[in-house]
Amino acid sequence: MTPVAIGIDIGGTNTKYGIVDQHGNALAETSLSTPKYEDVEEYVRVVSNAILSLIESLPEPVEVKGVGIGAPNGNYFKGTIEYAPNLKWKGVIPMTDLFGKYFPNVPIVLTNDANAAAIGEMIYGGAKGIKDFIMITLGTGVGSGFVVNGELVYGHDGFAGEFGHVCAIRGGRMCTCGRKGCVETYASARGLVLTVQELLAGSTEDSPLAHIIPEKLTPKDIFEAAENGDPVAMEAFEYTGKILGESLSDAVAYLSPKAIFLFGGVAKAGKWILDPTYRHMENNLLAIYKNKVKIVPSGLPDVNAAILGASAMVWKEI
Amino acid sequence: MTPVAIGIDIGGTNTKYGIVDQHGNALAETSLSTPKYEDVEEYVRVVSNAILSLIESLPEPVEVKGVGIGAPNGNYFKGTIEYAPNLKWKGVIPMTDLFGKYFPNVPIVLTNDANAAAIGEMIYGGAKGIKDFIMITLGTGVGSGFVVNGELVYGHDGFAGEFGHVCAIRGGRMCTCGRKGCVETYASARGLVLTVQELLAGSTEDSPLAHIIPEKLTPKDIFEAAENGDPVAMEAFEYTGKILGESLSDAVAYLSPKAIFLFGGVAKAGKWILDPTYRHMENNLLAIYKNKVKIVPSGLPDVNAAILGASAMVWKEI
Repeated sequence: MTPVAIGIDIGGTNTKYGIVDQHGNALAETSLSTPKYEDVEEYVRVVSNAILSLIESLPEPVEVKGVGIGAPNGNYFKGTIEYAPNLKWKGVIPMTDLFGKYFPNVPIVLTNDANAAAIGEMIYGGAKGIKDFIMITLGTGVGSGFVVNGELVYGHDGFAGEFGHVCAIRGGRMCTCGRKGCVETYASARGLVLTVQELLAGSTEDSPLAHIIPEKLTPKDIFEAAENGDPVAMEAFEYTGKILGESLSDAVAYLSPKAIFLFGGVAKAGKWILDPTYRHMENNLLAIYKNKVKIVPSGLPDVNAAILGASAMVWKEI
Repeated sequence: MTPVAIGIDIGGTNTKYGIVDQHGNALAETSLSTPKYEDVEEYVRVVSNAILSLIESLPEPVEVKGVGIGAPNGNYFKGTIEYAPNLKWKGVIPMTDLFGKYFPNVPIVLTNDANAAAIGEMIYGGAKGIKDFIMITLGTGVGSGFVVNGELVYGHDGFAGEFGHVCAIRGGRMCTCGRKGCVETYASARGLVLTVQELLAGSTEDSPLAHIIPEKLTPKDIFEAAENGDPVAMEAFEYTGKILGESLSDAVAYLSPKAIFLFGGVAKAGKWILDPTYRHMENNLLAIYKNKVKIVPSGLPDVNAAILGASAMVWKEI
């Protein structure tokens, strides 16, 4: 029987889950709406039964080696989700215990989504064989997972690795966390869009981005505008790369990684974000670190990276 | 025979070395001038022979289990000192190889001085049993050692943990490293003295600190002035604590330590530096970390902490 891991990615909008082999092939995957379930026990029952059906529907029998869960505010040590602002279930949710009722004989591991992505990168992606690296997820928010000497950094309470809430500019943009100037307010999809809006407000030139309703503006639109030579889009990536690169130069002083992987919507802009980020990081590095650290796009396939990351924890654990 | 470790702390001014037992008792210790020796092989010969004589002079026979060396720009992985600005020996010095000629049958480990201090804190000091902590040395410069899950963070090249060169204020004070705004330019002894000078320049009130030649001003003078109610001294500690505390709030977002230990000249100011540092750190922490992290003075005795730290590496290693 093929050994497989279950990967579950719990997001504010969707829960994605799948069955993944040791090489990172998703044998089956699907998703459901997370906020549809007010009651977390009902949610776990539906997800678990859907996974069990999915396993039965596979053409060949498989052996489930474990369940990996990526979740916002996921606590690796306790297997809990704690006070996640984007989920309906409040307080401390004992998620691994709840799933344990349906998968009683295998390890169930949980961590936050960016940590899961880091393990995905290590097991299946571009970080194979790299013992010290940083994974940065540039999505709606900015998340991070730090790998030191082959192990994820959890900190004493399981909550280490919040690069998105490191301060990039003291007294800078207001963050959803209630503080000001966090990296996330500049380098997330929302931050990039806000930068475009600020640039448009201060510019008299016409830009295709001025014709998109601000609420509908996406990193993809800004990428396409940059590809078409729009100065506003190019300047927005330059500015985002400056803030991100400066902050990454500090991240290097903390951890001295061999590589930094960028993942998520903003990272998909390729050279438009990679080039200024690398340039500003290098310009701000302490001499001892110069020309040593590479910044590369994640090697994980976009479509099911969250499931892969969650499942990778199982292979890392066993 | 009592098992002992040799601890050698190579500083720009002095080299201190001693023989330390497993409980952190220095059975013998002494020092010599580092810059007196232009030739590093001659230096290693003199230090090694002095240590061997010291061992023979002990009242009871001992068993040397290893040699630990703390040195500026020390590379743990290679056992080298690389381009240390404050030492006469330039380039890459294979320090553990050189000492190996005199101590052929025991492990010889080398790391930078702040990392050695962190291991000292873990083995003999206040960090016993704490698996995630940060050691900050506030001396002439600012150094740091990060311990994650009981292991020192070295990074891919052995140079991780340069908190002193994390940027506190972009475009801020000029640093000896050639960059601007590093934590070290504010929180080191030099930084504190500079803050006092800036405050004196902008003040019309009389301060006892105005009567000390700037080049002779020390953290101890500023501490004593604060104890005597001098507003300039108190404001200097408040400002230093603000910069240090803000930067430590970012350090917590990276590593989520259980404790932060402060060591060195500036840390000896006790509550004057600890209180504002803690207050500003807490004020700037992401909610998830609030009221979890303590900032405490190092538990290492001041007089031979460098030797202890270096020797502690031996107990950690074997």
